[in-house]
Amino acid sequence: MFEFEIVCEDGESGARNGRFHTPHGIIETPVFAPVGTQATVKALRPADLQEMGASLILSNTYHLYLRPGDELVRDLGGLHQFMQWPGPILTDSGGFQVFSLSRSRKLDADGVTFQSHIDGSRHRFTPERSIAIQENLGADIIMAFDECPPPSDYAYIKESLMRTHPWLLRCLEAKRRSDQALFGIVQGGIFPDLREQSARFMMALDLPGYAIGGLAVGETKAEMTAVLDTLNPILPRHKPRYLMGVGAPEDLVNGVLRGIDIFDCVLPTRLARHSTAMVPGGKLNLRNAQYMRDPQPIASDCACYTCRHFSRAYLRHLVLANEILAHVLLTTHNVHFLLELMRQMRAAIAAGTFRAFAQTFLANYA
Amino acid sequence: MFEFEIVCEDGESGARNGRFHTPHGIIETPVFAPVGTQATVKALRPADLQEMGASLILSNTYHLYLRPGDELVRDLGGLHQFMQWPGPILTDSGGFQVFSLSRSRKLDADGVTFQSHIDGSRHRFTPERSIAIQENLGADIIMAFDECPPPSDYAYIKESLMRTHPWLLRCLEAKRRSDQALFGIVQGGIFPDLREQSARFMMALDLPGYAIGGLAVGETKAEMTAVLDTLNPILPRHKPRYLMGVGAPEDLVNGVLRGIDIFDCVLPTRLARHSTAMVPGGKLNLRNAQYMRDPQPIASDCACYTCRHFSRAYLRHLVLANEILAHVLLTTHNVHFLLELMRQMRAAIAAGTFRAFAQTFLANYA
Repeated sequence: MFEFEIVCEDGESGARNGRFHTPHGIIETPVFAPVGTQATVKALRPADLQEMGASLILSNTYHLYLRPGDELVRDLGGLHQFMQWPGPILTDSGGFQVFSLSRSRKLDADGVTFQSHIDGSRHRFTPERSIAIQENLGADIIMAFDECPPPSDYAYIKESLMRTHPWLLRCLEAKRRSDQALFGIVQGGIFPDLREQSARFMMALDLPGYAIGGLAVGETKAEMTAVLDTLNPILPRHKPRYLMGVGAPEDLVNGVLRGIDIFDCVLPTRLARHSTAMVPGGKLNLRNAQYMRDPQPIASDCACYTCRHFSRAYLRHLVLANEILAHVLLTTHNVHFLLELMRQMRAAIAAGTFRAFAQTFLANYA
Repeated sequence: MFEFEIVCEDGESGARNGRFHTPHGIIETPVFAPVGTQATVKALRPADLQEMGASLILSNTYHLYLRPGDELVRDLGGLHQFMQWPGPILTDSGGFQVFSLSRSRKLDADGVTFQSHIDGSRHRFTPERSIAIQENLGADIIMAFDECPPPSDYAYIKESLMRTHPWLLRCLEAKRRSDQALFGIVQGGIFPDLREQSARFMMALDLPGYAIGGLAVGETKAEMTAVLDTLNPILPRHKPRYLMGVGAPEDLVNGVLRGIDIFDCVLPTRLARHSTAMVPGGKLNLRNAQYMRDPQPIASDCACYTCRHFSRAYLRHLVLANEILAHVLLTTHNVHFLLELMRQMRAAIAAGTFRAFAQTFLANYA
């Protein structure tokens, strides 16, 4: 269980094709995981996700703990059964959402007390509680409970690591289920020495996978890339590496170039709800008047259901008429777009042409 | 074109199985047409509708005229191409919406002037204008422009018929396309003599189909049934009969018993958006706390995508979390429910058991 096979490596970069074995199937990496915050990838049915080739999806511990409750999900057979996703699932630890969504939170060495963003009710998360909730949910990959500090406050991050590292030990201690892989989360902001310190601490524990947290939270693209360049030679080659919360196309390519295997992000689903379609080199806002009579699909070379059928003019009409189908069709396109990009990257790595693929691709995003 | 074959008739009632030939395929009757007001059956993709066996769908002239505009739809290849529905489409005349949705309308013998419910802009519909718009949209079945008066004001309805009947003649005169069937709309409220007068007027014109309008707008169930009992022996046997705006399950069965071939209604899609699932004998409101931990599907004998996969507990979670997927899955179930009821009625008519089917079915709605 949780074997990570490296199928092939790109000689010129850190990119590699892998196969991560989970109780609900093999994840071909590099992979993008669509986000199903509340046990649904917004606007998509599981059948739609399967049709577009999704393998891993992510769901949120903080949200599901608050609503409908992790014990309810457990009693209904666990998250796979509840949301009818037959493939692998990853749950985050709830830490990130506590620090970004909840109200009046109080952090101490043992955990964090907070108020629900839904109804203001009081709750407490500790490493043990996060693991217990994630065991009730039953995802294949679960995450260590940690703090996600602002990326450029050296003193604060250094202090935060002193909390987060012991919390990882407590997560490992609390973990009971053998059918779940617990990943540690390397923190350290934009500082190479702190990142290395955090990575070394976790590597000593020989975890089944390593996440990189605390990025895509306000630092520059160059700072993000520098962190990946720091960690690429340090993290063990034979374990999957997960860059949390990253989903901009250029960041996916830059991540794969630097040895990242797993990504997740709300970007494709969130952009869709803001009437925006992802296309090579940028975005289209379907609200714009220029698409009023445009008979073309969003992208002429896209094979998604939306592009195989509908004009930009029709999509614009659905957006302006505030129709639910606008969300369905734009989400379909955006998620397909990122899954297709990952397929192209896997194929280029297999063909030994990834460096050229990445250069051409990134030139479009310059 | 527009041949109506009667495949078999139920000896004991007015029910019949027919095949109505249209440029976009054959409609097996009796049929229920899901409503796609703004060129989309709310929350469903055309592929979903096809998978659940929809044949005819309805769209609204008033809405599409205002947004995105009938000329834009025409320029993009017509409504079938625009919304990517390959099967038959019916458009109403816009009359009903002008009288129910628009603001500060003024009716005269020639037509009606009104303000858009969207932006308050001023517009005028006449019989000629309604036909021109419907020809731009390009549906297979188009409707005569008429007034839909309150059902129980005898004097007003009598006067309204004096406007509506000449309008039908003007619609016929204005009509240019031979690939569209123009149906007349029998009005007359709850009054048998006015209904008969309206039907006789239209039958003299040998139209390809006859609609019954002005029902399901406030009269009692008994009054609706009485109108159908009046018209069943009068309307010609060899032409399709369309009961407009009716979609409650018991009304569908009562309509088929009285010779109705075509129905449409927003009920299944609207109920879905109000968290309500249609089930034999009634409705479930998925918001209710009683479904919080209910592992059952909405209906155990339902073969729709929703019931094949999801528990009431999951659907309730989606509803409370205000997830788009709640609308998608509940709409899928409700539309499937009515399409399946129509399939069962067609099968019972073919098997010569329709009277018994109807009695058993209606007993559940008593």
